[in-house]
Amino acid sequence: MTQKYSLKRTAERYMPILTWGKDYNRTTLSADVLAAVIVTIMLIPQSLAYALLAGLPAEMGLYASILPLVAYAIFGTSRALAVGPVAVVSLMTAAAIGNLGLSDPAAIALAAGTLAFISGVMLTVMGILRLGFLANFLSHPVIAGFITASGILIATSQLKHIFGIEAHGHTLIELIRSLLHTQHLTNPITLAIGLVTIAFLFWVRKGLKPLLLSFGLSPRLSDMLAKAGPVGAVVATTLAVFLFDLENKGVKIVGDVPMGLPPATLPSFSPSLWSQLFVSALLISIIGFVESVSVAQTLAAKKRQRIVPDQELVGLGASNIAAAVSGGYPVTGGFARSVVNFDAGAETPAAGAFTAIGIGIAALVLTPLLFFLPKATLAATIIVAVLSLVDFSILTHAWKYSKVDFAAVSATILLTLGLGVEVGVTAGVLISIGLFLYNTSRPHVAEVGLVPGTQHFRNILRHEVETHPSLVTLRIDESLYFANAAFLQDYVYDRIACDQPIRNIVLMCSAVNEIDMSALESLEAINQRLKDLEIKLHLSEVKGPVMDRLQRSHFLDDLTGEIFLSQYDAHSALWPKAI
Amino acid sequence: MTQKYSLKRTAERYMPILTWGKDYNRTTLSADVLAAVIVTIMLIPQSLAYALLAGLPAEMGLYASILPLVAYAIFGTSRALAVGPVAVVSLMTAAAIGNLGLSDPAAIALAAGTLAFISGVMLTVMGILRLGFLANFLSHPVIAGFITASGILIATSQLKHIFGIEAHGHTLIELIRSLLHTQHLTNPITLAIGLVTIAFLFWVRKGLKPLLLSFGLSPRLSDMLAKAGPVGAVVATTLAVFLFDLENKGVKIVGDVPMGLPPATLPSFSPSLWSQLFVSALLISIIGFVESVSVAQTLAAKKRQRIVPDQELVGLGASNIAAAVSGGYPVTGGFARSVVNFDAGAETPAAGAFTAIGIGIAALVLTPLLFFLPKATLAATIIVAVLSLVDFSILTHAWKYSKVDFAAVSATILLTLGLGVEVGVTAGVLISIGLFLYNTSRPHVAEVGLVPGTQHFRNILRHEVETHPSLVTLRIDESLYFANAAFLQDYVYDRIACDQPIRNIVLMCSAVNEIDMSALESLEAINQRLKDLEIKLHLSEVKGPVMDRLQRSHFLDDLTGEIFLSQYDAHSALWPKAI
Repeated sequence: MTQKYSLKRTAERYMPILTWGKDYNRTTLSADVLAAVIVTIMLIPQSLAYALLAGLPAEMGLYASILPLVAYAIFGTSRALAVGPVAVVSLMTAAAIGNLGLSDPAAIALAAGTLAFISGVMLTVMGILRLGFLANFLSHPVIAGFITASGILIATSQLKHIFGIEAHGHTLIELIRSLLHTQHLTNPITLAIGLVTIAFLFWVRKGLKPLLLSFGLSPRLSDMLAKAGPVGAVVATTLAVFLFDLENKGVKIVGDVPMGLPPATLPSFSPSLWSQLFVSALLISIIGFVESVSVAQTLAAKKRQRIVPDQELVGLGASNIAAAVSGGYPVTGGFARSVVNFDAGAETPAAGAFTAIGIGIAALVLTPLLFFLPKATLAATIIVAVLSLVDFSILTHAWKYSKVDFAAVSATILLTLGLGVEVGVTAGVLISIGLFLYNTSRPHVAEVGLVPGTQHFRNILRHEVETHPSLVTLRIDESLYFANAAFLQDYVYDRIACDQPIRNIVLMCSAVNEIDMSALESLEAINQRLKDLEIKLHLSEVKGPVMDRLQRSHFLDDLTGEIFLSQYDAHSALWPKAI
Repeated sequence: MTQKYSLKRTAERYMPILTWGKDYNRTTLSADVLAAVIVTIMLIPQSLAYALLAGLPAEMGLYASILPLVAYAIFGTSRALAVGPVAVVSLMTAAAIGNLGLSDPAAIALAAGTLAFISGVMLTVMGILRLGFLANFLSHPVIAGFITASGILIATSQLKHIFGIEAHGHTLIELIRSLLHTQHLTNPITLAIGLVTIAFLFWVRKGLKPLLLSFGLSPRLSDMLAKAGPVGAVVATTLAVFLFDLENKGVKIVGDVPMGLPPATLPSFSPSLWSQLFVSALLISIIGFVESVSVAQTLAAKKRQRIVPDQELVGLGASNIAAAVSGGYPVTGGFARSVVNFDAGAETPAAGAFTAIGIGIAALVLTPLLFFLPKATLAATIIVAVLSLVDFSILTHAWKYSKVDFAAVSATILLTLGLGVEVGVTAGVLISIGLFLYNTSRPHVAEVGLVPGTQHFRNILRHEVETHPSLVTLRIDESLYFANAAFLQDYVYDRIACDQPIRNIVLMCSAVNEIDMSALESLEAINQRLKDLEIKLHLSEVKGPVMDRLQRSHFLDDLTGEIFLSQYDAHSALWPKAI
């Protein structure tokens, strides 16, 4: 009975559909279906465009928008997240596959599916092991810098389609050099289609909604129609190519997209391919998870819902495994489409499953209509979408707020642009951690005194406080651990070297959250050195967990001074009576 | 004039000999010469033994004990440190060269010299860039575990010489397997020499000094004679081989050691060799520096002297470059010989230069006498020396004091024994940093209340304190940064979810030493969420540097509550009046 109960709970933890599915009814159904229709319309051009960005055949984008959505509907916890191919992950997929140096289209497609599979397994395992916290080591500024730099890379990579030329590269320098040195001549008709589409899409973003509102349409409907702008561009430019035979005038088109449902595919299990793709898959997993979970959290907060980050890992893992076995490539939760899904009123993850049905119908029926779709139109869609990701204001904010964050964000941007997405994001994480460690290795130590009339102690350099030359109180503003143990020793020795009448030194430990063994040895050394100089060492405001641990060592037996519960107690006890 | 002055200061910074050389006189000279004689006697067998441990010809040990000592005398800051070949660095040299898979003795010697050169350049550059703090990232328990495991590896690697058999390997498993599966038969005479020497050396350590004291010798002289024990063993066993023709009975001997001063050598500048040796050289540099600087600091403290860690890097760098150009291999400051040097009364680094002269004379004159020296004697010297490094008590101390430190030290020991010195020390550093980051990513948060009759606040779970259901005070025991920003958000949301009447939340920031941009965004999100729930967010005891930074952001404009100088102020202002 208990076992059965816990089995049920485990099932409900890993398959949230069992929870929300129970309350599913007609109202939620109709809301979900409406949202699904709108997201489907938005997702068709996006899926095709992002597949091309990833260097894959257009249909793989459609396939990646079917089964993965069903998997997320079963395993995901967000009620509004729309999963599928997204810009940054597509760019990272292109970089990962570019590293392999493949030219055979079948091998490229197999590598993309394998990448999705490895990433899916990683995400699922991380979810089961509850390793979601690892994503926290990507700091917000690093993510912001990475997204901005990726947006620039993506937009630049699409310029070749706008100009109708060939160009390659995974870094800004490679891309620009490739664009400048191409042997191809710009195709003026392609350029015209590209530029007009870009201008149209920007106008749709800014100008269409106010226009529709002025025609008396409801705000929500105006918003939805504005979001469908890319579909309008797709239809118009496809028709133009078809009617004016622009294909024979050099306009590159999407061409034959196979008609039918996604094929059943198997990832490769070649150990050498796995080891080549391992790091890329890890980076894609982490970036995809971070992007997805931040969207999901933002939307959940608006409806006072909760998402479970560790279960999100399982949901995204299942989606990627689903992508791998159905002809797709790495997917994650996308920002723009999730907002549309939310605004369109999606109530449950079932909306995603209905979207999958919509895309499935498109794959079955609409693909012949996509034959004449110009690649320049898709490139224009991508450029307009990703330029909204580019935001350099993070640089000025970071500069003003914290030079450490500024260093991390600017290094991330420069390295992503200069050396590619994988180096960029890895460097961002390492720089964040390195600077954090560097900072904690040289902690802030303040000499404090009593604020008159209170029991409160503040920095003698910043406040008017009472002090006495025989009593020095040092507030250590950091946990004491191996990286700063030597620093503390040097600091105390320097302090006592310059002042003779010191009789008591108090280390105020209100900000010391840990004392590890290295720091304990340093404290013992300080105690010994001060003892030789006939100075007593005291501690005050030692926290409970830290005190528990000190009591298990010999430090307290050898300590020349006392441990005071509060700094005020220490001050009262040690202040010279004869003054 | 000013330029000249600053030039002089720079010269004095980088060449401490200019400072202590000015006061050099007859008294210091005679003290230094006496110490040099004693260290020379000790260093001759050690140099030969450690060269064999490193897999190099015996004379390279002598060469590494000449010019490097002169270089350290010029550039080093410790007055007692004795530089030369040491056990752990020799083991690491053997591992580094073993990775290359060389068999030609000339190529091996060139690689060893190149390793010393790369390491010397690294140390010098780190010293000039003042990167000595990097050594702090090796925590004390990791170093202790590494030294213990290295001692075991070294002792095991020498067993082949004791048994007179062939064996190879760089990990404990390889070594034991190699010893067990050897095709060679144990040579009983070699084994007898080895075991008798080991027993003799242990007795010299424990029993000789008391014996000499009981004969009425002065304690200092008794100590010095006891330290010369290895030389007695060398003389006795060499004579035994010579007199009884043991070489022809299968006892392996040192054989021909070239007579003369060190040759002038050049390191290789092959990029492929440099890239193969780079990581090894870095690890040798760091381990050598850490070992050396801790010995130097211990000895300096006894005489109230100071060493300058960044200049120590330059001193050790110069020593290694000197080793590279004079037929040597990587060197560093050794523990045992530095203690002997100190105890023998060395006053200045000149003692090292005099030791170099002593070893130089030995290389010129004594090498023919070393022909019949059994390798088993040198192995016994090494085994007895390194077994004093083996100390498992660090495991019990760490277990009692901190599970995190225990994890780091036991992983370091196991990985060093199982996968070799390079993996072991790298893993130790990464595990220490990883566990520190993991701990700070899940900070301790205590709900606190007022200790009655004071202005002091403590954990409600540990102390009898005053609280009110409408006022929750959370003391955050960690700096807020990207790795724990999400944790804080979750913690606050969980806390407010279970309690309805909360009107005010105070975050007590006495232990918050930093708030980075990620954490700032989390605080903004918390503030917004609490605002929606009509709960005010306040901060108290924000530190000066943190407050400076918050004032440069928009956070304070949007904050629903106030910032209180002290938690007591917050408590007084927010405590409901009507109670």
